[in-house]
Amino acid sequence: MPVNLVAPDPASLLPVAGIKLGIASAGIKKPGRRDLTLIELAAGAKVAGVFTQNRFCAAPVTVCKQHLAGGDIRALLINTGNANAGTGAEGIKRATQSCAAVAEMLHIRPQQVLPFSTGVILEPLPIDKILPALPAAQADLAADRWSEAAHAIMTTDIVAKAASAQAQVGGKTVTVTGIAKGSGMIHPNMATMLGYVATDAAVSQALLERLAKEVADVSFNCVTVDGDTSTNDSFILIATGQAGNAEISDTASVDCAALKNALSEVSIRLAQAMARDGEGATKFMTVRIEQGRDHAECKQIAYAIARSPLVKTAFFASDPNLGRILAAIGYAGVADLDVDNIRVYLGDVLVAEKGGRAASYTEAQGAAVMQEAEITIRVVLNRGEANATVWTCDFSYDYVKINAEYRT
Amino acid sequence: MPVNLVAPDPASLLPVAGIKLGIASAGIKKPGRRDLTLIELAAGAKVAGVFTQNRFCAAPVTVCKQHLAGGDIRALLINTGNANAGTGAEGIKRATQSCAAVAEMLHIRPQQVLPFSTGVILEPLPIDKILPALPAAQADLAADRWSEAAHAIMTTDIVAKAASAQAQVGGKTVTVTGIAKGSGMIHPNMATMLGYVATDAAVSQALLERLAKEVADVSFNCVTVDGDTSTNDSFILIATGQAGNAEISDTASVDCAALKNALSEVSIRLAQAMARDGEGATKFMTVRIEQGRDHAECKQIAYAIARSPLVKTAFFASDPNLGRILAAIGYAGVADLDVDNIRVYLGDVLVAEKGGRAASYTEAQGAAVMQEAEITIRVVLNRGEANATVWTCDFSYDYVKINAEYRT
Repeated sequence: MPVNLVAPDPASLLPVAGIKLGIASAGIKKPGRRDLTLIELAAGAKVAGVFTQNRFCAAPVTVCKQHLAGGDIRALLINTGNANAGTGAEGIKRATQSCAAVAEMLHIRPQQVLPFSTGVILEPLPIDKILPALPAAQADLAADRWSEAAHAIMTTDIVAKAASAQAQVGGKTVTVTGIAKGSGMIHPNMATMLGYVATDAAVSQALLERLAKEVADVSFNCVTVDGDTSTNDSFILIATGQAGNAEISDTASVDCAALKNALSEVSIRLAQAMARDGEGATKFMTVRIEQGRDHAECKQIAYAIARSPLVKTAFFASDPNLGRILAAIGYAGVADLDVDNIRVYLGDVLVAEKGGRAASYTEAQGAAVMQEAEITIRVVLNRGEANATVWTCDFSYDYVKINAEYRT
Repeated sequence: MPVNLVAPDPASLLPVAGIKLGIASAGIKKPGRRDLTLIELAAGAKVAGVFTQNRFCAAPVTVCKQHLAGGDIRALLINTGNANAGTGAEGIKRATQSCAAVAEMLHIRPQQVLPFSTGVILEPLPIDKILPALPAAQADLAADRWSEAAHAIMTTDIVAKAASAQAQVGGKTVTVTGIAKGSGMIHPNMATMLGYVATDAAVSQALLERLAKEVADVSFNCVTVDGDTSTNDSFILIATGQAGNAEISDTASVDCAALKNALSEVSIRLAQAMARDGEGATKFMTVRIEQGRDHAECKQIAYAIARSPLVKTAFFASDPNLGRILAAIGYAGVADLDVDNIRVYLGDVLVAEKGGRAASYTEAQGAAVMQEAEITIRVVLNRGEANATVWTCDFSYDYVKINAEYRT
């Protein structure tokens, strides 16, 4: 069950001026399932994206990148039930067809539409089901449908993921609202992560692209990582420019900092929600590495711990199995690590130092921490100033059950 | 349950001239458990070893490396129930104490003894239990106790692992016999693998060291990998030199090839047995990558597939889920891989090519292959001459159960 996660109150999700969302049922995998989401952007909106590094990237990712390069995006189309991945040239053709149909309906060019798909891999995209459902999605377009959209993009997610924040930018109140899906975070390799975060702030295209990367690095990339992602992972940042602020283009400005804060807050809540809703999750784990030489080595160690099935099953069993944590640090691949200098904390409890168990540590202390639903593993490398955080969840019987039964 | 694996008939395990084995119960973890194995080598035996790359390597590994550097090894002491890992300076002291006790008993120097431990991490080695049991192990020493030793070194293993082979070398029949333990191969990071392979052939020290590495690379390193190993992994190769052949020192000789064949055969059987006995295994999987640019990239892709929890749960469910295999290839981290050139086979069935499902493929074909207990995934990269093979097993409910309950 999701760990301390409930779907947000729809009333807490603030409309973003210049954005409308519409939902429809195309019956892609299950009849009647609301599986198609159309997002319409007002003219002048700017869009930036960060995509999977997987060599088998899905057809819609390829098409998205091409269309984004042309700019002036006016619509996004998201379907669940089929990932249109591993579908070769025919997959590209069908993704392009869906863009063309949206374009005709909205009187824009096909290159102004971004397609997204998540669901079963290697099956042809059922374009014959998607196209007839587009008019219903259009008819449903409204500014206050973020909650419905958050539900419509779910696959194995149990809880819908959405969040809003506001900030003062250039004397104006700007709004940030985002939705995301993804729940396979027990092992982030394959969890298709889709994230859409929009603001009404005015931002230059160059800065928006930079913000997309920086915000992803402190949020979605803390539950997944370059070169280790699903075929379809996509994070899209939209700025409609309707808040009335002077366009922000200076990365060093106070306005940029305020906006980035709000974008990060929403994105971190969405990213953490993915780990909280991890398949079969019973515990939410934060792995924090401190005092490393650089961010890369901190992240490398954080992922070694966060991915280890042995660490994760121990957390499922509420077993403070320090040996498994130490071993994961040891095999993380940081070649010149001096294990005698490392301190490991479970919650606030010092559990290991000088290459072994801390003298002050008792099993009772570890067991007490393990009873919590949210647990932080903190590793202090004691050799620099860098740090990194990764969120994950534990590893239960239900993970195997879900993934043995679900056909991605 | 282990996949097509039964304990070898004790009569099939051939004594190796110059080697005696003795078993005793030290009661390290459970009273009465036969948890202590002493291996005595005749004077003149040569020994080489390959050890874990884990930065948190266990105390016995550190001591083993020191003692091996001095040469003239005459005894090995192996305990289960406690890994003496993450035990700091005190762990080194206790490992050294156990060597000293064996040395005193056998009238050799402590530096002529190699210590090995496997079991719980971070607990002090109960030297007070081990030392009193040594005389019983000595009293038990005999040449025909390989099967008993294979049983005594087991931890979560269900089936004892041992094998013998013979070869003609320099006009003499030489014998190779080996034992191994390790069963956590579902994810090889932490499965403590211990392997001991002995021959009565005469081999130069330099060649033996080279053979240890080469044989490990085609056997034990196909279920585990450098930098990604447990704290205690050790593979020891012993040559007693009592077969009467002229000492082999030329790597290009026919004799060397014949001996290497026999050593590899035994080691591969032991290594495969670990995957067959993987925790919770219901299927034995061979992942073979062909026509890569170099061995490293082939192994990288093989491991990405063999480690993916999503691939492994699909095999557990007998679901020919090609998408998960393709995605694993895609995130393996081989940056310039052209996925359109790759062919993927499940057994003999071509399942994917040109970036998607093969036109000739039917689900019925895939489902038929998935019914087998032993399945080969073959990936043809079509860009070179190199290849690599990795053995693993599927991922079942029982893996979670075993690892949630067992304290490594």
